[in-house]
Amino acid sequence: MQKFVNDPSQVVDEMLEGFVKNHKDLVAKTDNPRVLKYVKAPIENKVGIVTGGGSGHKPAFIGYIGKNMVDAVAVGEIFSSPTAQAFYDAFKEADSGKGVACLFGNYAGDKMNVKMAIEMAKEDGIDVKTVIANDDVPSAPKDEREKRRGVAGEILMWKVGGAKAATGASLDEVISTCQKAIDNTRSIGVGLSPCTIPEVGKPNFTIEEGKMEVGIGHHGEPGVKVSEIKPAKEVAKEMVNYVLPDLPFEKGNEVAVLVSGLGATPVLELYILYNEIEKLLKKESIKIYKSYVGNYFTSLDMAGATLTVMKLDEELKELLDEEANCMGLKQFKG
Amino acid sequence: MQKFVNDPSQVVDEMLEGFVKNHKDLVAKTDNPRVLKYVKAPIENKVGIVTGGGSGHKPAFIGYIGKNMVDAVAVGEIFSSPTAQAFYDAFKEADSGKGVACLFGNYAGDKMNVKMAIEMAKEDGIDVKTVIANDDVPSAPKDEREKRRGVAGEILMWKVGGAKAATGASLDEVISTCQKAIDNTRSIGVGLSPCTIPEVGKPNFTIEEGKMEVGIGHHGEPGVKVSEIKPAKEVAKEMVNYVLPDLPFEKGNEVAVLVSGLGATPVLELYILYNEIEKLLKKESIKIYKSYVGNYFTSLDMAGATLTVMKLDEELKELLDEEANCMGLKQFKG
Repeated sequence: MQKFVNDPSQVVDEMLEGFVKNHKDLVAKTDNPRVLKYVKAPIENKVGIVTGGGSGHKPAFIGYIGKNMVDAVAVGEIFSSPTAQAFYDAFKEADSGKGVACLFGNYAGDKMNVKMAIEMAKEDGIDVKTVIANDDVPSAPKDEREKRRGVAGEILMWKVGGAKAATGASLDEVISTCQKAIDNTRSIGVGLSPCTIPEVGKPNFTIEEGKMEVGIGHHGEPGVKVSEIKPAKEVAKEMVNYVLPDLPFEKGNEVAVLVSGLGATPVLELYILYNEIEKLLKKESIKIYKSYVGNYFTSLDMAGATLTVMKLDEELKELLDEEANCMGLKQFKG
Repeated sequence: MQKFVNDPSQVVDEMLEGFVKNHKDLVAKTDNPRVLKYVKAPIENKVGIVTGGGSGHKPAFIGYIGKNMVDAVAVGEIFSSPTAQAFYDAFKEADSGKGVACLFGNYAGDKMNVKMAIEMAKEDGIDVKTVIANDDVPSAPKDEREKRRGVAGEILMWKVGGAKAATGASLDEVISTCQKAIDNTRSIGVGLSPCTIPEVGKPNFTIEEGKMEVGIGHHGEPGVKVSEIKPAKEVAKEMVNYVLPDLPFEKGNEVAVLVSGLGATPVLELYILYNEIEKLLKKESIKIYKSYVGNYFTSLDMAGATLTVMKLDEELKELLDEEANCMGLKQFKG
């Protein structure tokens, strides 16, 4: 196992320790070792933004803690849901009395634990509402969108939600904007190699040399098909062809595009892929208002990439343009 | 080859196209397809900052083009020096009449081409001075420092040089501060896997499963030894033990620490490594004033990491604290 680890069972604790040390200007520990918070949270007169999920997706989830972004994160083990207690404690760290928007991905464990945490928070008088991201197109048919996984679209949802909360908007307003954001967002992933969970020590699935898995999930969930690796322009076309018709995105739409590596793919390749995606959208007369290319939501050391497209209106454009300061997304205003 | 490419001979062109499209707020093309510049360069009454090097090290080199950072970059093929013409054209794009600081790494090809480019620029009346980074400790003995390679320490040199130039300092002042910066900087790399140049299609060196190569270069240059992979704390100790005695860094020093992944290593592991490095420096009573952990200077899809430590004085601290806005390093002031 070609990895920098000590005790494989301690990777999450040790990673969190290093993370907080390196980002002490942005992130603080809390009494719960599986909850990190923004150093300034809770922020007076602002809806708290909370998310959570398994570890191994860096920058997600803790990398999005910061200014105009997420106030507190519940941290799970590698590829595992955080506990209900962690979500509950994150709600408490984020709430300034104006309520908490819990913006997370559509996975059974997370849903169950968030539900329990909301019950616990209710007894403390903390008002928590949720938006469940389900942007991953290949994970279920269009008429069963409620079964789709949440993937890198979550980042754009946090960006929008964090900026909306910072305007002093009410909990209902933040929730409604985030719901709109994710309803307007579609994603797809393509895997080129498996990944290795440190405690397991070897990949728990395989992608043959020369093959790619279209529609792969962030934990190696099987995709919709395995095919020969094609040139980047063909891969881009395949991704775009899944994503565009699903919303559908149409001629004249303005969109945000996020191309994320899955961990082991060089950023150089992501730019090649983005170049092809941009050409394809241009051909469809879809205008890219804002784009993000890099490692935004990974799967340990999986090789591959995801494409996320969000249809924008004036509100979403303004919120995306706001300043953000967190490890995973530093952005000056505009 | 598990890669997103089209024609392997076109990866640099296509990557540059995607890069400029995605970062059009920061980076612009020039008449030379192998030179990119900051959208605002040349900046009136500011020394121009130029660097250059082979492709495949993203964010280096073009990812450091931006505000208070690098004004123009000469782009080489994968792992190859840019041409003299590219360096010369980069000088012209960066010069506002106040001269150009060319801050680059100690590689034979780059040195030769920079030298020729300086001759060409002289005929145009452009004053170019250089600082050659040689921060890689294992690449030559201490008394032959002029033979050492430049590695991730270049990033801190560009950060310092870019901020210094932005103060309106003269060329000699910028050069002198950058020389101090790199003289105060030491690095080491540890490789856990080889990397694949797209045009070659397979790794051109090997690292056996379960082994690590200590002192590896950014192009797979052999290190000083191959050993069993050790726990992260032992790897950290080995890295620190090469770096600290070399300057030497001493009790009471304040330092900047940069831990960069080499491309395929998950960021999670970099935080584990940083956590151990921080403990070791603390034990030596060396204070980390600023730290950077992430993929700052990579080698395509090599697994591994580098450690860079820079000894700080008041000037270097102030310059590191300045705002920076480029793809590879976005930093709010302070």
